[in-house]
Formats: sequence, structure tokens, C-alpha cells
Amino acid sequence: MISKNKIKLLRSLKLKKNREQNQKTILEGIRLIDESINAGANIESIFMLEEIFNSNKNLVNKIKNNNIPLNIITKEDLKEISDTEHSQGIVAEVKINYSTINHLSSDANKIIILDNISDPGNLGTIFRTCAWYGIKSIILSSGTVDPFNFKSMRASMGAHFYFDNIIIDNSQSIINFLDSKYFNVYCADLNGLDITEINPNKNWAVILGSEAHGISKSFEIYDKLTIKQHGKIESLNVSVACGIILNQLVK
Amino acid sequence: MISKNKIKLLRSLKLKKNREQNQKTILEGIRLIDESINAGANIESIFMLEEIFNSNKNLVNKIKNNNIPLNIITKEDLKEISDTEHSQGIVAEVKINYSTINHLSSDANKIIILDNISDPGNLGTIFRTCAWYGIKSIILSSGTVDPFNFKSMRASMGAHFYFDNIIIDNSQSIINFLDSKYFNVYCADLNGLDITEINPNKNWAVILGSEAHGISKSFEIYDKLTIKQHGKIESLNVSVACGIILNQLVK
Repeated sequence: MISKNKIKLLRSLKLKKNREQNQKTILEGIRLIDESINAGANIESIFMLEEIFNSNKNLVNKIKNNNIPLNIITKEDLKEISDTEHSQGIVAEVKINYSTINHLSSDANKIIILDNISDPGNLGTIFRTCAWYGIKSIILSSGTVDPFNFKSMRASMGAHFYFDNIIIDNSQSIINFLDSKYFNVYCADLNGLDITEINPNKNWAVILGSEAHGISKSFEIYDKLTIKQHGKIESLNVSVACGIILNQLVK
Repeated sequence: MISKNKIKLLRSLKLKKNREQNQKTILEGIRLIDESINAGANIESIFMLEEIFNSNKNLVNKIKNNNIPLNIITKEDLKEISDTEHSQGIVAEVKINYSTINHLSSDANKIIILDNISDPGNLGTIFRTCAWYGIKSIILSSGTVDPFNFKSMRASMGAHFYFDNIIIDNSQSIINFLDSKYFNVYCADLNGLDITEINPNKNWAVILGSEAHGISKSFEIYDKLTIKQHGKIESLNVSVACGIILNQLVK
């Protein structure tokens, strides 16, 4: 069962201002919710159709073992909450934190900064890649898509919950932070130092810009970093570039 | 202008059997068509709205310089052909080749094999990544999404046209080919040789499987190759994995 007020709240989370105000978002789908529990997400409650309850014993046990409140709901109620065309019959209400850079852990030392990345699919794939490489801190410039929108959450497959810090702030505050610490900062770019030739100290940050518009002018003060091109095509996908750079920097 | 018969033909290319029969597909969008011309695509004709003609002088000049027939069409006619919800007002009719493995160039020596990759976005991103690394030959097992469907074409941003070979065949024919040549063959997998530790000869092939189902049983005869994991998340996106592997193998 689910109350009318709860449906209203969950439905409201489609809008960023409501996610921010409530510090909550929605996870949809069996695999995403399963992986988010594995990652230690702070899930407040899960709502599923009876048929999902009956056919996913492992997941149901995992939910119970983690003491997450579990509610059976009707197709009609689910439809009011769901964001996807073909709902998988399960949604979770999860706590998140919209944090600015003054909340970044003082020991943060390997940082990926995302500037003007507008595609939520790319953003989610970058989050997965960062989680694979054990990165704990991600900073998003204010031009980047909201990391807590439902599409970003789906694409990241629970990676959000492996991070210590997901920070959103404007480029000037990000630059002020970087300059106040001893960080090696690099912008991924088409013309710069070959990634195989750099040897950063233990505090480093890499800025990845949008494929269409590159990196914001204000970040151009930093060294540029390049993945060697062997063919003639103009650019790499930004999430692929992120993986190649992390594979080089994280040893 | 565009004839009724031409509209009928172009519209029919939404189906694979018609693309195969005509050895043609459709490119949609300004950037995709621009990049495909740069890549040397065999474009038979381009259809655009008058407003696109008037506002894209550089592209129009490029089309003329490449002697590609250019036609102005109405919004109504375009809508009949277009596959996208928000058409960019331009489509191109382009020659392609559906080829089986017996058509692979005899000098093919760095090959990416895609097994059961079902997402056209991932497929297109892999194509872009391969083009960046100068790979000339891609082989798709019959379980992989059609590389010439409109979504794959859009996601690859013209990368298709940099390849010498795009081959589609069943896994047994692929294995027979690999075994008849002196290829080092590796499957990307979660448990295998570290990518930094292999040193293949100049003939190599890497098989990438689906994220959900891994690699087909029949390919399990080959050595496995792994990207070192530093965090706890379960898997990397397949196109990101492709980039990291190519960055290691292509020197």
C-alpha cells in the first residue's frame, strides 16, 4: 500500500527543485535497485508490483536483510510514480545529497570534474567508470546535467552510491578550491600533453568538457591532456575518454 | 523535389531486410552528414528543407564540392522519411555493404569483434572509438544489433565510413576465419590476463561481449583479457572497455 501523499511526493521528484528540497530521488528497475543496495544506498522504501515480489526472491530477501521497508503497490499507483515508458514494476525512494564544494571531504585527492556534460547517459556512464577506478570524488560545474535526475541514476547503475562526494558548484568556486590546495589539474582536450607522459602527484583533478563545446573558458588556465589519436575521426565520446584517462592515472 | 517512389524507397530502409536488399541506409542530421562526407561516405543524394539550405552555407558548399546531388524537400515529405521525433531537416541516402567474413580484406590485422551487443548507442560509440584508434576492420556476430540501423548510424557520427571492413557473420564462421590465420585472439572478460601484461603479435583480434550476458560460449576457447578493477562496481560499459583496451593495444 502507498498513501496519496507519498505518491504525490514521489511524483514531485521528477523536478530538480523538489529533489533538492527533499534531498531525495527515485530509482527504477530491478538491476538498478539491486546494485544500489550493494553499493550501500540509503534507500528509505521500495514499492513493487505483486508479480515482481513473487518472481524475484533473491532481491526481496536482500531488501529484507537490509531492513528496507517494502510495499506492494498496484499498477495504477506505480504508473503515477514511474518515469519510464515500460516500467519494470519496481521503484525505490532514496536519500541523496546536493552538496556544494565547501562540503568536499578534506582528504579528497583524485577528482573528476565534469563541465557542461549535458547528456544524462554519458554522465551515468562516467559515474560507473569512476566507480570502477575507485574514484571517490566527483565535481560537476553548474552547466552539467543534474546527476540525480532519473535518467542519470539509471545510466549509472548504482555507481552514485560508491562516492564520498558528489559536488555541484560554479566554475569559479571550483577553481578557488583547486587553487587553495596543491592539486595537479588537467583539462582533457584535443591538443595537450600526451596522457602517457604525465606523472601527477597524489592530488590530481581532471576536467572533462562537453563533446560539442569543449571546456569552459574559465578552466583554460590549466594544463591540457590529450589521448593520442591514430585515426581521422574528430573526437572520442566523453565517457570513453574518461575511462582511458583513468586507466592511465589510477595505478 | 523528391518523387513518390524515392520517398517509398527511403521509408522502406527503416527495415533491415530492405537495407540489405538495397545496400543502402539513411543518415539524419547536419553533423552526422557533415562528418560522413569528411569520412568519404558514398552518399547518393541529400534531401534538405529550404531553411537548412539557407542557413548552412558551409555544408551546402561541401556537398556541392563533393558532387553529391542535393534536393530541397518539403516538411511533409521529410516527415515521411525521417526516423527521429525532432528532425534536423536533412537526410542523406548512402550506400553501404552488408558483407560476410569471406569478404574481409586479406590484410586485415587489427580486428574488433562485437558479440551480442544489442544497444545501438553502445555500438555507435564503439565504432567512433575504433575509428579514433585507426582500426580498419570490425566483425559483428549475428547476435549484434544491425550496424546500419538509423540509431547506430547516428551514434557513430560517421565512423562507419572510416572502416575497410564491417563484417556480419555467425560465430562459427568467425572462429573458422580466426583459426585459419595466425591471430592472437582475446575475449574481454572480468577474469583474465591484465591488459598491461599482454604483448600480441601484429595480427590480433579482441572480442567484446554484451554487458548483460558476456561472451558467447563458442568464443570461450580464447584467452581472456581484463581491465584492472580498483573499485567495487560490477562492470564497465562495453564502449568504455573498448577504448581502454584499444589505448593499450594500439601503439
